[in-house]
Amino acid sequence: MTQKNAVILGASGYTGAEMIRLILAHPKLKILALTGHSRAGQAVEATYPNFAGQNLPNIVTIKDVDWANIDVAFACLPHGASQDTIASIHENVPVIIDLSADFRLKDSTVYQAYYNRSHDHSELLSKAVYGLTEYARSSLNGAKLVACPGCYPTASLLAIGPALNNGLIDPHNIIIDAKSGVTGAGRKAVTSLIYPEVSDGAHAYSVGMHRHAPEIDQFIQTITGEATSVRFTPHLIPMNRGMIATCYVDLTQGTSIDDLRQAYHKQYDNEYFIHVLPQGQSPQTRHVRGSNNVQIGLFADRVSEKAIIISAIDNLMKGSAGQAIQNYNLTQGWDERLGLQMSPLFP
Amino acid sequence: MTQKNAVILGASGYTGAEMIRLILAHPKLKILALTGHSRAGQAVEATYPNFAGQNLPNIVTIKDVDWANIDVAFACLPHGASQDTIASIHENVPVIIDLSADFRLKDSTVYQAYYNRSHDHSELLSKAVYGLTEYARSSLNGAKLVACPGCYPTASLLAIGPALNNGLIDPHNIIIDAKSGVTGAGRKAVTSLIYPEVSDGAHAYSVGMHRHAPEIDQFIQTITGEATSVRFTPHLIPMNRGMIATCYVDLTQGTSIDDLRQAYHKQYDNEYFIHVLPQGQSPQTRHVRGSNNVQIGLFADRVSEKAIIISAIDNLMKGSAGQAIQNYNLTQGWDERLGLQMSPLFP
Amino acid sequence: MTQKNAVILGASGYTGAEMIRLILAHPKLKILALTGHSRAGQAVEATYPNFAGQNLPNIVTIKDVDWANIDVAFACLPHGASQDTIASIHENVPVIIDLSADFRLKDSTVYQAYYNRSHDHSELLSKAVYGLTEYARSSLNGAKLVACPGCYPTASLLAIGPALNNGLIDPHNIIIDAKSGVTGAGRKAVTSLIYPEVSDGAHAYSVGMHRHAPEIDQFIQTITGEATSVRFTPHLIPMNRGMIATCYVDLTQGTSIDDLRQAYHKQYDNEYFIHVLPQGQSPQTRHVRGSNNVQIGLFADRVSEKAIIISAIDNLMKGSAGQAIQNYNLTQGWDERLGLQMSPLFP
Amino acid sequence: MTQKNAVILGASGYTGAEMIRLILAHPKLKILALTGHSRAGQAVEATYPNFAGQNLPNIVTIKDVDWANIDVAFACLPHGASQDTIASIHENVPVIIDLSADFRLKDSTVYQAYYNRSHDHSELLSKAVYGLTEYARSSLNGAKLVACPGCYPTASLLAIGPALNNGLIDPHNIIIDAKSGVTGAGRKAVTSLIYPEVSDGAHAYSVGMHRHAPEIDQFIQTITGEATSVRFTPHLIPMNRGMIATCYVDLTQGTSIDDLRQAYHKQYDNEYFIHVLPQGQSPQTRHVRGSNNVQIGLFADRVSEKAIIISAIDNLMKGSAGQAIQNYNLTQGWDERLGLQMSPLFP
Repeated sequence: MTQKNAVILGASGYTGAEMIRLILAHPKLKILALTGHSRAGQAVEATYPNFAGQNLPNIVTIKDVDWANIDVAFACLPHGASQDTIASIHENVPVIIDLSADFRLKDSTVYQAYYNRSHDHSELLSKAVYGLTEYARSSLNGAKLVACPGCYPTASLLAIGPALNNGLIDPHNIIIDAKSGVTGAGRKAVTSLIYPEVSDGAHAYSVGMHRHAPEIDQFIQTITGEATSVRFTPHLIPMNRGMIATCYVDLTQGTSIDDLRQAYHKQYDNEYFIHVLPQGQSPQTRHVRGSNNVQIGLFADRVSEKAIIISAIDNLMKGSAGQAIQNYNLTQGWDERLGLQMSPLFP
Repeated sequence: MTQKNAVILGASGYTGAEMIRLILAHPKLKILALTGHSRAGQAVEATYPNFAGQNLPNIVTIKDVDWANIDVAFACLPHGASQDTIASIHENVPVIIDLSADFRLKDSTVYQAYYNRSHDHSELLSKAVYGLTEYARSSLNGAKLVACPGCYPTASLLAIGPALNNGLIDPHNIIIDAKSGVTGAGRKAVTSLIYPEVSDGAHAYSVGMHRHAPEIDQFIQTITGEATSVRFTPHLIPMNRGMIATCYVDLTQGTSIDDLRQAYHKQYDNEYFIHVLPQGQSPQTRHVRGSNNVQIGLFADRVSEKAIIISAIDNLMKGSAGQAIQNYNLTQGWDERLGLQMSPLFP
Repeated sequence: MTQKNAVILGASGYTGAEMIRLILAHPKLKILALTGHSRAGQAVEATYPNFAGQNLPNIVTIKDVDWANIDVAFACLPHGASQDTIASIHENVPVIIDLSADFRLKDSTVYQAYYNRSHDHSELLSKAVYGLTEYARSSLNGAKLVACPGCYPTASLLAIGPALNNGLIDPHNIIIDAKSGVTGAGRKAVTSLIYPEVSDGAHAYSVGMHRHAPEIDQFIQTITGEATSVRFTPHLIPMNRGMIATCYVDLTQGTSIDDLRQAYHKQYDNEYFIHVLPQGQSPQTRHVRGSNNVQIGLFADRVSEKAIIISAIDNLMKGSAGQAIQNYNLTQGWDERLGLQMSPLFP
Repeated sequence: MTQKNAVILGASGYTGAEMIRLILAHPKLKILALTGHSRAGQAVEATYPNFAGQNLPNIVTIKDVDWANIDVAFACLPHGASQDTIASIHENVPVIIDLSADFRLKDSTVYQAYYNRSHDHSELLSKAVYGLTEYARSSLNGAKLVACPGCYPTASLLAIGPALNNGLIDPHNIIIDAKSGVTGAGRKAVTSLIYPEVSDGAHAYSVGMHRHAPEIDQFIQTITGEATSVRFTPHLIPMNRGMIATCYVDLTQGTSIDDLRQAYHKQYDNEYFIHVLPQGQSPQTRHVRGSNNVQIGLFADRVSEKAIIISAIDNLMKGSAGQAIQNYNLTQGWDERLGLQMSPLFP
């Protein structure tokens, strides 16, 4: 069996650490190098004692990577840094899977408006495949650069995708109320993330202006052809991993909740990672924890012709590193489930 | 100073325990009796060691209460049991503050539809004041029976009240996505509430059919005169206390977010317990924990003419026992803040 | 590759669910049957939605199991029920791995004293191998009945084992202060385990009389030949999984902390699952979460000739289901790591 | 009623915030000034929105305090900074209550050894009263400078005090295994304190060398006259507030557990804040949360002549700000309970 060699760029954040966990369990991938900035020269175990005994390479700076043997780079860098790094290496690395925001938005002016910096490598934007896996399989095969969707867009779009695909809801009136675990904010030494400030409580943030909203819009337009502005509000709640998107939608005329349910089963029943729950059962983030799974629940609202579609994912897995692996598997023509068949860790 | 004597009916649930905490700190109230069913004969400290040293009376059954000396009964009983008990005692007790759902809904057929039992004391419904304090002061003065609002309606209605009052939003298109701490489910020995099943995760429940929705409708109609059906989805998240209501509203034509903000400041700036937060600041349940406070945040949405109004309360305080005290204070013509001026416990 | 067929007895508790997770990931094991009492006839997903999509057999009663094809039974039953069941099936099942307490204590009078019932199958006690894996490999090869150690004894004995083995500490003066996550109490519908009663706080329980103390004594005697009484205090803390044993020991005359450290490295450095941490680093349960790993830290105390040995495990893994798999692997002469090489899930 | 004017030095840490909460509820104290370094010029609500509506003075630098009107300074500064500040103001401020470590240790060489800096104001050490309230009342009356004990010493010494007082345990062989909530680490922007790094797990820290050990030693010597070295290990567990000290002690010859229990009841039954729990009941931090209460449990160990004494406090209250108020009350000859009679907030 041919094994591919991977580098993880930005290995010391939570997304990077999750990539390490997944590649260690992948039958066809091997970690050849790990990069980091402030931790260059250190063992990974100094930051992540959970990797003790795995004989991982020490962290190095990006310039110390020997690119000759790298088959794939998983970029877990902050936005901005990611585009600069990818621009400098993309000619030497067969496949780049970017987990940052830098190649998700096709319109660089939208990028600039939401990310407070110019996009300096817009020539690469057209080459990047937007890797919402279940909707991008044909483009992923053979792809060289994959932009993995944000965690909120992943949860949201998998929730409303079949309804949009089948014209069952009005794309112009979608409200997504999302709740995220704390790892979604990354591994940052800021007061607002310390335990007493985020435990035993909840709050919304970036209300009315979160960066993931235009990314959701873009995909809705891809599917429906219509320019929309989704209403999207994220909340931070006291859990490590997990994300729920509660989507309030208007059914198109003549569409019943049963029609909706039928469309979801038709589209998703053959998906390995996506589970449309039985009627009345509500998705729970803890039931997908640590896995690439997605739970989807469909509900009639009290008001006729309105429905509620709820999805639950693990933000570090299907919302990030898990989908990255799934996408890479497809670029290679492999079974997309490779290395991702672990059950959720519950409790 | 005249002190009033109180009985707490159903003292061993979380709402009952919170009533004990509050009455112990109230300058004009004294606990004369505590009732319970399965724990009759026991000391309160057997269930709540936090009350050690307070010399509380032992728990007794309702029939062992000496009603002659009772000035006020705080009923913390399950719905159904509450109406039966109140019907049997209301002629002997000067004031009854009911924390259950039994006298909230004015229409007994709606009650029956949502609570799965008949309302057997509908003659009392018209006498009960719906005690959303800030909107009911004139009716509360001298009231004999007060139905304290549910926690979700309290959070929701305080959030949208000024907008409705001033005709600034469309009452027919309101979506409330709410998140509650676990104490909202009561002190019940059920598997679905044990720590591993509710920690480190989140989920919606009673989607599309929660009992608090018609209660919200009823109040909206009281204010606006229009029959509506609010869309309301509650979620359970891993915190002890606290509740957030994220309300998605449509501004009426010509209303700006500044108009909205101005109306809230005008209505709420003189309220002791309600704080309209500065622009950009988001309500956090942990910042009202243990207090009767309410935080309200107002936000323009990405879509023009849409707004997001968010409120945070402590479900056991303003959502239950705190509002009960506030209401009782007003029935007596006292300062409504009596016994409720503690700061939130943060962290 | 020959695959062995497994039944999990008592599949609906947390230990049973963890066995399902592990067997699903095991290359040589297949789940043939799952048993349960109150949930017989139901799908596993009704209790554990995390197993959606795994095509597991429905839960059946023990009497409905077709024993002819079963190669191994993993018994996750309550003590008492376990011995009765095992006595009735052991002649028909090639290998039984018992995760209960029933065959851990060799002396049935001690069992009776601590478990409040007689041991009715003491003839099987001598046949049961006490499966503290790293200390029992030679007995495990070919074993028919394995008694997996309790979670506390596992954490404690792995911590003090090398010191005892090498005569470096006084076996008569050992204090073990242990802290456990809530899953250690099982999936029980009792008020004392609901979220508000165990979150945001900590307490000791079964002080001076926990059932795992005599089990620890027994093993110390096996190693040292001396009858001892360990002092052992368990605490419940708000985490799902995880267990820490903080062991206070007296070094024997002439033993330095460096001698101690050397002995541990010598004994454990070739162990796949056990990691002796670098000097100064403290074991953390979150760094072994979801894995069969053990972290051990060694510290000189402020008082000369005293040391502190700390271990961290996942109570459902090395403390239960993980060690059960490890033991079964060895009964079959397989690599003990089979199915257990997943990294910890952190965060 | 004469009201005293207070300044809180270092108001933006968690201890400072707790002082604000307590003084706001104190009938004889008024906040005149709040100081801070990096937040000078800001409103307190910018950091602590929980204080919205309280009309607190803005934060100022220490040099901007008008000392003329200050009756008492509560110093919530880091060690080192505290001694320097106190030395500079003590002649102008009638009473200083220091919550830092700077005046706890009477021996400045011990201070230097444990706090990595010299003690530059050792002339003040002899004037400082070590304010473990229940053991210091006579010295507190009229005191000008009070050194409030650390949270761990408070929990530990209240647990073992009566036993030491009465010669019932061997002072030379005491082991204290303590568990603290995260607020004990302060409000610091460090990665090791962010939610994913401290939730859902537990670990020991500063093993064998915590700064509070010599402070415990000093007090034991004060009581018993004997120089000792306590063995003390702190752990960090996922809760906001709360501290448990599990103390392993050797009973002196002829002392029974009943003798021990009797001594505790005799000494503590008239204490308002300290509750010796009924036999078999274990202290829980959540049952003292937000209050100045102390719970103490006494247990016979499995080994004869050994006992376990467990205490639970709220680290920010009896372990810090609560005891500070209690001490100040006594300096003024007031009822020590003033402002401290709130019930614990449970759940």
